[in-house]
Amino acid sequence: MSAAIHWRRDIHRHPEVGFAEFRTASRIAGRFADLGWRVRTGTDAMSAADRLGVPDAESLDAAYERAAADGADERFLPRMRGGLTAVVATVDSGQPGPAIGLRADIDALPIVESVDSGHLPARDGFRSSYDGVMHACGHDGHIGMAVELAERLAERPLTAGSLTIFFQPAEEGGRGARAMVPVGLADRIDLFLAMHVGLGLPTGRYLSSVDGLLANSKLKAVFHGVAAHASIAPHEGRNALLGAATAMLGIHALPRIPGHETRAGVGRISGGTSSNIVPDRAEMLLETRGDLGVVNEHLESRARDVLTGAAAMHGLTVDIETIGGTTTATADPEAVSAIETAAVSAGLQVADGLPVGLASDDATTFMRHVQENGGKATYVGLGATLAGPHHTPAFDFDEAALPLGVDLLESLVRLGQTFA
Amino acid sequence: MSAAIHWRRDIHRHPEVGFAEFRTASRIAGRFADLGWRVRTGTDAMSAADRLGVPDAESLDAAYERAAADGADERFLPRMRGGLTAVVATVDSGQPGPAIGLRADIDALPIVESVDSGHLPARDGFRSSYDGVMHACGHDGHIGMAVELAERLAERPLTAGSLTIFFQPAEEGGRGARAMVPVGLADRIDLFLAMHVGLGLPTGRYLSSVDGLLANSKLKAVFHGVAAHASIAPHEGRNALLGAATAMLGIHALPRIPGHETRAGVGRISGGTSSNIVPDRAEMLLETRGDLGVVNEHLESRARDVLTGAAAMHGLTVDIETIGGTTTATADPEAVSAIETAAVSAGLQVADGLPVGLASDDATTFMRHVQENGGKATYVGLGATLAGPHHTPAFDFDEAALPLGVDLLESLVRLGQTFA
Amino acid sequence: MSAAIHWRRDIHRHPEVGFAEFRTASRIAGRFADLGWRVRTGTDAMSAADRLGVPDAESLDAAYERAAADGADERFLPRMRGGLTAVVATVDSGQPGPAIGLRADIDALPIVESVDSGHLPARDGFRSSYDGVMHACGHDGHIGMAVELAERLAERPLTAGSLTIFFQPAEEGGRGARAMVPVGLADRIDLFLAMHVGLGLPTGRYLSSVDGLLANSKLKAVFHGVAAHASIAPHEGRNALLGAATAMLGIHALPRIPGHETRAGVGRISGGTSSNIVPDRAEMLLETRGDLGVVNEHLESRARDVLTGAAAMHGLTVDIETIGGTTTATADPEAVSAIETAAVSAGLQVADGLPVGLASDDATTFMRHVQENGGKATYVGLGATLAGPHHTPAFDFDEAALPLGVDLLESLVRLGQTFA
Amino acid sequence: MSAAIHWRRDIHRHPEVGFAEFRTASRIAGRFADLGWRVRTGTDAMSAADRLGVPDAESLDAAYERAAADGADERFLPRMRGGLTAVVATVDSGQPGPAIGLRADIDALPIVESVDSGHLPARDGFRSSYDGVMHACGHDGHIGMAVELAERLAERPLTAGSLTIFFQPAEEGGRGARAMVPVGLADRIDLFLAMHVGLGLPTGRYLSSVDGLLANSKLKAVFHGVAAHASIAPHEGRNALLGAATAMLGIHALPRIPGHETRAGVGRISGGTSSNIVPDRAEMLLETRGDLGVVNEHLESRARDVLTGAAAMHGLTVDIETIGGTTTATADPEAVSAIETAAVSAGLQVADGLPVGLASDDATTFMRHVQENGGKATYVGLGATLAGPHHTPAFDFDEAALPLGVDLLESLVRLGQTFA
Repeated sequence: MSAAIHWRRDIHRHPEVGFAEFRTASRIAGRFADLGWRVRTGTDAMSAADRLGVPDAESLDAAYERAAADGADERFLPRMRGGLTAVVATVDSGQPGPAIGLRADIDALPIVESVDSGHLPARDGFRSSYDGVMHACGHDGHIGMAVELAERLAERPLTAGSLTIFFQPAEEGGRGARAMVPVGLADRIDLFLAMHVGLGLPTGRYLSSVDGLLANSKLKAVFHGVAAHASIAPHEGRNALLGAATAMLGIHALPRIPGHETRAGVGRISGGTSSNIVPDRAEMLLETRGDLGVVNEHLESRARDVLTGAAAMHGLTVDIETIGGTTTATADPEAVSAIETAAVSAGLQVADGLPVGLASDDATTFMRHVQENGGKATYVGLGATLAGPHHTPAFDFDEAALPLGVDLLESLVRLGQTFA
Repeated sequence: MSAAIHWRRDIHRHPEVGFAEFRTASRIAGRFADLGWRVRTGTDAMSAADRLGVPDAESLDAAYERAAADGADERFLPRMRGGLTAVVATVDSGQPGPAIGLRADIDALPIVESVDSGHLPARDGFRSSYDGVMHACGHDGHIGMAVELAERLAERPLTAGSLTIFFQPAEEGGRGARAMVPVGLADRIDLFLAMHVGLGLPTGRYLSSVDGLLANSKLKAVFHGVAAHASIAPHEGRNALLGAATAMLGIHALPRIPGHETRAGVGRISGGTSSNIVPDRAEMLLETRGDLGVVNEHLESRARDVLTGAAAMHGLTVDIETIGGTTTATADPEAVSAIETAAVSAGLQVADGLPVGLASDDATTFMRHVQENGGKATYVGLGATLAGPHHTPAFDFDEAALPLGVDLLESLVRLGQTFA
Repeated sequence: MSAAIHWRRDIHRHPEVGFAEFRTASRIAGRFADLGWRVRTGTDAMSAADRLGVPDAESLDAAYERAAADGADERFLPRMRGGLTAVVATVDSGQPGPAIGLRADIDALPIVESVDSGHLPARDGFRSSYDGVMHACGHDGHIGMAVELAERLAERPLTAGSLTIFFQPAEEGGRGARAMVPVGLADRIDLFLAMHVGLGLPTGRYLSSVDGLLANSKLKAVFHGVAAHASIAPHEGRNALLGAATAMLGIHALPRIPGHETRAGVGRISGGTSSNIVPDRAEMLLETRGDLGVVNEHLESRARDVLTGAAAMHGLTVDIETIGGTTTATADPEAVSAIETAAVSAGLQVADGLPVGLASDDATTFMRHVQENGGKATYVGLGATLAGPHHTPAFDFDEAALPLGVDLLESLVRLGQTFA
Repeated sequence: MSAAIHWRRDIHRHPEVGFAEFRTASRIAGRFADLGWRVRTGTDAMSAADRLGVPDAESLDAAYERAAADGADERFLPRMRGGLTAVVATVDSGQPGPAIGLRADIDALPIVESVDSGHLPARDGFRSSYDGVMHACGHDGHIGMAVELAERLAERPLTAGSLTIFFQPAEEGGRGARAMVPVGLADRIDLFLAMHVGLGLPTGRYLSSVDGLLANSKLKAVFHGVAAHASIAPHEGRNALLGAATAMLGIHALPRIPGHETRAGVGRISGGTSSNIVPDRAEMLLETRGDLGVVNEHLESRARDVLTGAAAMHGLTVDIETIGGTTTATADPEAVSAIETAAVSAGLQVADGLPVGLASDDATTFMRHVQENGGKATYVGLGATLAGPHHTPAFDFDEAALPLGVDLLESLVRLGQTFA
């Protein structure tokens, strides 16, 4: 079993949600340190204040303790306390050459993984051991490829330029990149790429530039009402859940915009305690997306109107908090060209047509930052046949794609010499 | 501090929700055993299969462990494992005389208790030490009065008939009485009463019969949909939360019925995980109530139509489970008369007018059962001025009512001789 | 066929909605004038400015023309133009004695009458000849009784006191009484009664005081949005119907109030034109009711919050207009006693129990006014077995009740001598 | 004033909705007959049974009478009674050459036209004289161009092939083309085009093929409930409007489909009569659209689930009727090329980029039919700068576009000789 697959499976079995990737991040940091890379963690790798949607202290502590008990690397774990789970690892040839940057995201999702016998992780014993959390988007594979790449570079070092890998927490929700950019480690990157497995592309194929990443806004709305006994005095209550239910229907009813990709939806509601108490609190997670920033802004603005109007309808107040968001970005031809050259070496074929890649990814925040500082960037799709769709309990990808991805990355960094 | 108040405060500080009253019930059993009563627990006191709305095993285990660590009576605790938290305590004079039955409910509510300095339990240090659980309906007082009554009877024993106290778990939600009646301990009760503090009556007043307890039905509905990535493939999902939100609005819109008390509402919704996953599951707690059984049945039937229709609208399925319910009951004049006689002895005045007592209580299940077996029954309101409404974080009652309540109960059981 | 039945059937065949009772009112005026009563119409009988919910000019004109073509009394019709359809008819004995007032309402409802062969008006040829309008509440019977009473008094005149009949337009919606009171004709009434047929009471029975008439508020809400092509530019529209639909669900979800009668509902929505145009206008008729004025005010206030909140949710504005409303009133024991005495003479039996008479009636506006001026008042229920419920297409009442009602009224006015 | 503008203004002043274009169609028939064309009307031009969404008989009769009184051509009017308002006019050179077909749609929309002084039709006196109906999509211009083209061909006849103009009723809603195709007059068309003014293209520009016409489905849903007095017996009613409001929110909440154009919305609701009657009937017009037939079918299917589910929720039944619908179609390169050649002659420039032309048009039904029979087809956009968007009260187009459009059509039909 290759290092990529070995690591992928270990990480898959121990999935951690955004900013709680204590085991994941500390083990990455340890491995890269052992391989001789310069490793930055904690506030050297990210700005605590620029994070969005950080879990509450209790959840973070519980995740921290679990990680400590479950194989975290104690050399790095303490610096990550409180959700500082970014890791930046750099290897430098000491010779002139391009500074290449690679984003690898490391967080999992709050999904209960399938126990179906047809689901490979279940059958082969690497299904999530953490209830209700799952690597259902392939980030475990991104980590695996990064580790195998490092091992290859340990055997046969770079001869020109440098490579920096940005292990980013909290990609889901678009919450982590914005906290890593401010510390400045991406300021001098010449060539930046994010690479994502799956996306509907079959194993053996790739895309040098995934267009259509959507701008998005993630909001948390908390409706506050008045509790009351639901039978003795329902009229003295103000039912926070009624506000949430009404708002949900209004948000889903936001209009489509011809010629554009739009999304608007609620992914979570939680409110009330028992049937005989008028709920005084309801919490909602929602998001809007658009293929242009202005499209997303239009939808977000209208979603906010829906939230405040629904609160007013039912005598409630509502607090709205931005807990995540991404921008759009455009690939540079120079970066695309570099990827294409590397792909030829790696024996990958260009995919037919575009993926349905209309998701979002805050790798765009890195991309825009690199571009604003004069570097070039792209977002690469690495084919990996899927057993189930992204973000679903049956998600799984063809692990045969991982060595191919490492080949592509290796080719790129070795070709890097010729890039600048 | 009287025993009633002392016990009330201890129980108040350690509130436990329905079927999880491990500490509460075991300590009651221990105290009554120590006072020489015959104490029945576990399956001698209740039928496990007739319970409704039992918490999941994990929650019960956690509550059990907490109780074990927090002062539960180890003599009785093990028999209660798995939620068998009813206790039936009997003292028998050995002489002819009426068999009197008293229902004392022992469960708390999932409410975060006020931390306000004006809130007596907070100020005097007996605020709930269990986060998110609170005695917000006065059941702690019911326990306190029962203990003090037992202590008085220990000092000066009954001379005729017997007294059986039914310590009932899970009154909230109407889930416990139905599990206690089948074991037969109420079959031969001659005079049965439930007594409830508060209800809007001031300290020093009482009502010999609280009319208007509503029949109710408590339902748990779980909507099942299909998960999908909310941006890549929203159309492949079926959003369980949309079904729940739609159903909630439909349930609250059920019509009023002229001349009758009706209630229909949703007290809890929980569904989905994050904003970028179409929720494949949403859970809802709801209830209907009516001042007649048929009124409640009409509303429950229509609520079920709302649930299944809302599921069909959004391509979902829905499982509906009855998790609780109460019936109505009517007081017997003989029982009312006995209470009134006792109240004179206890120095209590009849309250002006009815309380707004339009709640539900599954004491009615005991009442009907006793009546069907030839006994007499009533539901007594014991005045206790309130600092905040029932079922709200600021609920508190005037403890000065507790000795008065014990006086009333003591007079009744001593007068019992003359009842039959 | 008695005059009451004859008139009832003629009026039934020619139903006219509130403020459009041109044929009805002019014929009443003509008949009473012919019988020698003093008849007041137009602005002598009502204040135009105090009306609520007046139909638009076009509708009034059309109704006026139809009446003119269909047997209206031309002597009185012109004074009624524009919706001044109140008639006040007085007969005075010239002798001392009480001034008795009787309210008879004259308007019909916007309902399509049943064509079922089991429906007596259909079978016997007096079904509504005006499409979509129907006497579905018995006001036609009220008119019939008033006419027969007048005919009897013509044969055998009053010997003491006076009788004034207030033929009130627009009782439905609570819009007419408030326009009649200001002209002062009810200022000196000593004994006032409104009498209503049906109400669930069987023929031969009566109630001397119908308690529980609800206060109500009738509102018209017009949502204004922005039109757009529903396919080319839906996002440029603001859909007024979405506001109305959202508000409707919110209004029906207003909480019940324990111990009180409450109603809250939407009876009409009309908005938009075709499926491919985003609707820029939606109109809604709604009402709230309560058994106390404050209960109704609470509901109305919350309904207004719902309307404005729903508009804000969807980027709309909303205009809210009060188009009707009633108050509550309490019967005077003296009036009740007078009715009971008269009922004995008329051979009517007291009904068992209350009717479900939890409707509203702006006769309460007259009652309160009379009482504030020192008179006595009550609201009488006259039993008349129903073939179908009030306000439904199958409504019909047992005409045998009409002579009994005339007997009651005649007894009352002849006994009136002894009242004061 | 050119014939095109003269006719456009007359038609604009007398707008008639789909299948009620009695004045419009009869005058077109008369003019073309006078110019010597072969004119087919009534059942020679369309199949009555294949129409969808035909207005009720009463509305058709009223429109017919209005047309008769307002300048309809009596020679053709009687054949159109009942909504047979299609006209097919053919001129044949008698010489070999292509059979060219042109679709000109003739219906107006249920919109109240702007009275603003900045609105040209208002200022220049040709605003709609029919309340609530408006030519707000430019079909009046299509008629004007067809007439002027015929006048030019009268002066200088065709020398090869033939031209058939299909004056189609009820384009709005996609209801008319399907009734014209079955009579067979389009079976042998070699080159077919529909031409539409506006679409966001400026005067002087054109598009030889408007891509992206959406497939759509227009549905009429009628909810049936049970009427009841809203205060006396609301629980005996089943509120049809609650079903409609609930369904509307559900339809607007149907998911977007990534990478595709989707629409789903309600354009009209009408239900209930007054606030005190529970509505037993509510009518709704809705539509779905998609850029592929399967996309639209998916949405329509889910909309039907929403309708039936919402009815079930509230104890209602619902009847769903298809009242219109269009398919998609693709232009043929040969047809595009012919248009481009003609446009050069006419001096028109190709528009920059696509229009936002994401509407629907049942010209696609003609196009597919022609193509299935071996002919070629396209849908042409004729630039005409707009004063307000399509389907809004302020819609107006630059009349200077009309002679340009006639030039284009004339060039095409004269070039036709070279086409085949």
